Amino acid sequence: MAAVGSGSTALLTDRYELTMLQAALADGTAHRRCVFEVFTRRLPAGRRYGVLAGTGRVLEQLAAFRFGTPELDWLADERVVDDATLAFLADYRFAGDVVGYAEGEVFFPQSPVLVVEGTFAQAVLIETLVLSVLNYDSAVASAASRMTSAAVDRPCLEMGARRAHEDAAVAAARAAVVAGFAATSNLEAGRRYGLPTIGTAAHAFTLLHDDEEAAFASQVRSHGPGTTLLVDTYDVRRGVERALAAAGTGLGAVRLDSGDLGVLAHEVRAQLDAAGARDTKIVVTSDLDEHAIASLAVAPVDSYGVGTSLVTGSGAPTCGMVYKLVAREGASGVMEPVAKASRSKTSLGGRKAAARRLGRDGRAVEEVLVVGPDEQVAAWTDARRREPDPLLRPLHVPLVTDGEVLPGLTAAAGVQAARARHAASRDELPRGARRLSADEAAVETVEMRLA
Amino acid sequence: MAAVGSGSTALLTDRYELTMLQAALADGTAHRRCVFEVFTRRLPAGRRYGVLAGTGRVLEQLAAFRFGTPELDWLADERVVDDATLAFLADYRFAGDVVGYAEGEVFFPQSPVLVVEGTFAQAVLIETLVLSVLNYDSAVASAASRMTSAAVDRPCLEMGARRAHEDAAVAAARAAVVAGFAATSNLEAGRRYGLPTIGTAAHAFTLLHDDEEAAFASQVRSHGPGTTLLVDTYDVRRGVERALAAAGTGLGAVRLDSGDLGVLAHEVRAQLDAAGARDTKIVVTSDLDEHAIASLAVAPVDSYGVGTSLVTGSGAPTCGMVYKLVAREGASGVMEPVAKASRSKTSLGGRKAAARRLGRDGRAVEEVLVVGPDEQVAAWTDARRREPDPLLRPLHVPLVTDGEVLPGLTAAAGVQAARARHAASRDELPRGARRLSADEAAVETVEMRLA
Repeated sequence: MAAVGSGSTALLTDRYELTMLQAALADGTAHRRCVFEVFTRRLPAGRRYGVLAGTGRVLEQLAAFRFGTPELDWLADERVVDDATLAFLADYRFAGDVVGYAEGEVFFPQSPVLVVEGTFAQAVLIETLVLSVLNYDSAVASAASRMTSAAVDRPCLEMGARRAHEDAAVAAARAAVVAGFAATSNLEAGRRYGLPTIGTAAHAFTLLHDDEEAAFASQVRSHGPGTTLLVDTYDVRRGVERALAAAGTGLGAVRLDSGDLGVLAHEVRAQLDAAGARDTKIVVTSDLDEHAIASLAVAPVDSYGVGTSLVTGSGAPTCGMVYKLVAREGASGVMEPVAKASRSKTSLGGRKAAARRLGRDGRAVEEVLVVGPDEQVAAWTDARRREPDPLLRPLHVPLVTDGEVLPGLTAAAGVQAARARHAASRDELPRGARRLSADEAAVETVEMRLA
Repeated sequence: MAAVGSGSTALLTDRYELTMLQAALADGTAHRRCVFEVFTRRLPAGRRYGVLAGTGRVLEQLAAFRFGTPELDWLADERVVDDATLAFLADYRFAGDVVGYAEGEVFFPQSPVLVVEGTFAQAVLIETLVLSVLNYDSAVASAASRMTSAAVDRPCLEMGARRAHEDAAVAAARAAVVAGFAATSNLEAGRRYGLPTIGTAAHAFTLLHDDEEAAFASQVRSHGPGTTLLVDTYDVRRGVERALAAAGTGLGAVRLDSGDLGVLAHEVRAQLDAAGARDTKIVVTSDLDEHAIASLAVAPVDSYGVGTSLVTGSGAPTCGMVYKLVAREGASGVMEPVAKASRSKTSLGGRKAAARRLGRDGRAVEEVLVVGPDEQVAAWTDARRREPDPLLRPLHVPLVTDGEVLPGLTAAAGVQAARARHAASRDELPRGARRLSADEAAVETVEMRLA
């Protein structure tokens, strides 16, 4: 769990959440029941689907979203809010309900991937943290899914820590594994989420030694012949010769980190095979993205190490997810839909249920937003639970009830469940949805209005 | 300071740093003296300069880069390294030297922005953390500098927390202020680095209330007429009328978050002036980047709130900085330059000094890399210190000596020093270097070889 200073996550928050709270506490509206929805208005240009990731991290951080003495003292010193608000914050813990798409699920424009219900005071405070986590983690998972798609059954390895903020890197490794990556170089991600970690040596290790022979001999002595030797510090052909001299034909793998990887892979494979090292694998790294991976499909490559393009979302470094108030208790105590109504950024008001319509072949056809009076939407949801429709898969699952996080959604278990969910949801996409070329969302989002 | 689990930052590290260490400890090379340099091979396409940020954060985190029992236990359980390496790690603290460009300084391709010297074991372990911090923070600062340039003397306000990983958001706010932003919405960044924080209300606050009048009245009651009212939830013209009705002509500001901001700003300014609210300011937000800011130069806008494009580096979400071994002690005990020499990614070996050559007008002309035998480079540096050359400004300043971080470089003081350094260095750039249109690096990087 990310932590700051005292271990509280409560100040990972935009100031306006607190100033709104102060005014709403003063006028009584802070206690109105509210429904906030998280969704994105559009996918990045050319993308056919998005991948929800970070839900488990949101849930982990909710518990630490408490205003302790250090936070309250700072807010008081800075006069961010008044004493009444400080008193409220001192007792704050999130006590509302959250439902949402299962982590790892694919999403489309308008998909309500998270729905937070509680008083305004309860729900507004967590807006910034929820969006920070989901926007970054989903950006990485959405890119990662295209990479693992392009790699087909060859493992993708996450190696992007150095190209992302140091804590974002841990989240990126987690999101990559949700979207099918096999392992990560990031030790903290390994520790925190039980992910397999990988890595053997950089060019610096070779350069440290008097020559390549000495470096390879040392690495094999220390890590055994099953290690991966980086063979492109000097001349690749000589590097492979020296690697085989050091480790024998039982050498685990060679890594290529520069040059024309497709050509090199063919040359190195031929050289390894000729020397009898038929089981020695070839790992390629060096500014790979989903397109580079796809272009290497016919090259004799065994796994792909991906860094920069993964942790920066391959051109889409954040999702445009927003956290919008869609319904709230009115003065009469009845829940009413609300929506911004000025020139742009119009939203669809009212609480929604969501389902994916499937064709007879089991593939997704439409993203269905179920809208209408609150009680009708709730009744529809209950009915689908009682009588599942094999051609209409409900997408919301409970995540938090009365402030309690449901089990199995966080830490390593959450990552594994999300990984399985992603694999199943991606398999369900229409044929062609996984092509890398730019196109519209793979399914259309439609509204189903209940009377 | 970012922290994880036990508060240690030591596992924010790629696994290969530790596996290299194990082999180097076993063969004795771990104790060879090494010089690693951090530099980037190129600027993002079209950018004319980069801005170094994050140095203060690197230094803050060095102190927490210790392997405690939880870290050692996990490494042992996972068999990441052997017992001898675990024993070394248990005692590890960085005890080397670091010099670098002052935080906030501008940089160009090949600029050696950080130079780490120590044994291989000392210096290799911190590679991942150093790069994570500098690559992200510098990407944000480099984008931020273009925004504050485009805004000229109108304040830029950082509001991007929700579009970045929650801890990256804190670093982004800090980097933005280094590059001239006036304030941030991020409370944790305010607390940690003493930054001014801003923010009043979102559309949800208006929607929570029965109508816009009630929302504005409540906000003014709670925060005074000097507050900023968000006037575009429904109709902007009516919103401004209601804002003035609630706060009077002493209203602090109105915020516009949608629509054609240039046109709206003119209309709203006319409306405010006609009502006598000549001192009421106009804040604009809504997917601004440096180009949008520039295009609003002639609009009556008082400040710019920037989110997504800032925290994602406005198209360049990471710098391509690398951490390369450039010199190391050989078997004879003498320092020797080293460099990768295969088909691509060639680096310039040897320790370098760096200086900016200035013209008679005080503007930068060249980035000078001083290369040659180690003792010659050191002698050159000493000579420049004794006899400053007004036309050749040395760029390396000491940051860490024998593991001790020099004072004034971290926390709030570090941010303010970096902000001043950035302003001065940017002013020194050649005329035209601050244009937003795509072009080459503003000055050429040249090599000055000492015999």
